[in-house]
Amino acid sequence: MDIAQLSDRIIKGDRRALSRAITLIESGRADHRLQAGELMEAVKGHGEAIRIGLSGTPGVGKSTFIEAFGSMLTAQGLRVAVLAVDPSSTRSGGSILGDKTRMEKLSRDPNAFIRPSPSQSHLGGVARRTREAVSVCEAAGFDVVLIETVGVGQSETVVAEMSDLFILLLAPAGGDELQGVKRGIMEMADMILVNKADGDLKAAATRTCSDYTGALRLLRKRPQDPEGFPKAMMVSAQQEEGLKSAWEEMTALTEWRRENGHFAARREAQARYWFNEEVKQGLLAQLETPEAKAALEQAAEDVAEGRATPTNAARELLERLKG
Amino acid sequence: MDIAQLSDRIIKGDRRALSRAITLIESGRADHRLQAGELMEAVKGHGEAIRIGLSGTPGVGKSTFIEAFGSMLTAQGLRVAVLAVDPSSTRSGGSILGDKTRMEKLSRDPNAFIRPSPSQSHLGGVARRTREAVSVCEAAGFDVVLIETVGVGQSETVVAEMSDLFILLLAPAGGDELQGVKRGIMEMADMILVNKADGDLKAAATRTCSDYTGALRLLRKRPQDPEGFPKAMMVSAQQEEGLKSAWEEMTALTEWRRENGHFAARREAQARYWFNEEVKQGLLAQLETPEAKAALEQAAEDVAEGRATPTNAARELLERLKG
Repeated sequence: MDIAQLSDRIIKGDRRALSRAITLIESGRADHRLQAGELMEAVKGHGEAIRIGLSGTPGVGKSTFIEAFGSMLTAQGLRVAVLAVDPSSTRSGGSILGDKTRMEKLSRDPNAFIRPSPSQSHLGGVARRTREAVSVCEAAGFDVVLIETVGVGQSETVVAEMSDLFILLLAPAGGDELQGVKRGIMEMADMILVNKADGDLKAAATRTCSDYTGALRLLRKRPQDPEGFPKAMMVSAQQEEGLKSAWEEMTALTEWRRENGHFAARREAQARYWFNEEVKQGLLAQLETPEAKAALEQAAEDVAEGRATPTNAARELLERLKG
Repeated sequence: MDIAQLSDRIIKGDRRALSRAITLIESGRADHRLQAGELMEAVKGHGEAIRIGLSGTPGVGKSTFIEAFGSMLTAQGLRVAVLAVDPSSTRSGGSILGDKTRMEKLSRDPNAFIRPSPSQSHLGGVARRTREAVSVCEAAGFDVVLIETVGVGQSETVVAEMSDLFILLLAPAGGDELQGVKRGIMEMADMILVNKADGDLKAAATRTCSDYTGALRLLRKRPQDPEGFPKAMMVSAQQEEGLKSAWEEMTALTEWRRENGHFAARREAQARYWFNEEVKQGLLAQLETPEAKAALEQAAEDVAEGRATPTNAARELLERLKG
């Protein structure tokens, strides 16, 4: 594959080139990984998207929200890409975005691009491929890249580490439901959106929103937040209400961060984070070869049966890996 | 240091040899690490202790419990070692067991041995050293090894992975407090002890104990549990009540597991787990040399400033580490 040509076509906004690039990125073949690396260098620095991470457990209406929010953005003339981080997708055989019928309108929209989560057994693999897909979508001229996660295990951290804004989508709930959201996730959120603020649930949504507004105030003030942020807001994806206001808040926050250097600083910190992750994953990849796996299994057997201690068996195995 | 001599003295129950051995284990020096490895091989298979992991957040009365429970055991003629896993101890400058005055009676008991958490910045380092200390205490003839943790981050998993029994110590609380204990921790527990079941708190303790009994019943039955386990019980460390019953349940559970092969199977699985952890930590240790740190820092700078992508910078760094 001619990577220079591919990257030129991506930068010109060619959709088929973008799809081919993401297929290349998702491949596990060693030569493809090298080409993907070249491609990343070639597209580096192109495009200027807002990357929005979106977390929410099943039932909060995430697909409906993305459909409505994405369509509102494309109606404003913006180009929107939707990606997903779902480490569970291999097991379930499908991915959270595999079923495009859930976003029927957006998937037919010429200004939208939807790509399901890559199938990978490791969250590390999903993370790298999604992160690289975000970069090529940005290079392809998308204005907004939405990165969805179901919030399985560490996937929220993964998504927050590749987003300019990390949004937590919640459903209206009883007053004691604050417990349901882990403190760590709250602390990552740049904005909380309480969905389904319509009909019978309006009152509950109002209370939930006010509960979270209070909870957010109790968190330590972060330097990257202007006055009033992080904030909780109500939306109704179903009724298409509150979406424009939410977008206005997002752009205002992003603008403030750009002007105050926090936008660039966050991307820099994220680049460092992913570099360190890549180095670690690269070292641990030595254990994934058939030879290493066989040696590991044999040594683990010796350890389990008491013929060696974990400490010494590990030292010997590491020496064999080096030699 | 003559390791053969040291291990002989340990196996004979020499306290000073035990202390020296743990100091050796806690050292970060490469030659000490090698000697510690030899020592582990030398003491392997000696002794037959019950290893009891004990988790509980500050305020549940953990020190009072260990003092009372440990003294009850030594009064029965048993020898008790107390170790701790506290990855936060480096930062706070002390460790949770550093202040032996909190366990004044037990620390003067000739049949007890108390050792604070090793000072290490990484949980991995604390884990390895504590795990090795458990083995030498067992070889030194202690009948019970208590491993305490404050439950910071992953430290509960670390302790559960080196214990035959993992005990969760709780304080009496309001009915909605079940939320406070993460489901993952509940699933690791072999027994829950509700402490402070005395005086004004007796009623609350009864309710809390019954709440947890219900919650434990809802968990999936594990093959390593006989009928009625895991169970929740009330104790009062202050009043020295319920401690003997708790110990009887612990020994009954352990006996059942020994007879049904689960005791040995758990230790085997733990040996495998620690072997794999040691291998991973050993690979990642390549990043800790001054040269590697300098190269990492330089490459991270290039990545942060956009001169390289995380993917390619990581690949180049890994090649340099190999070469």
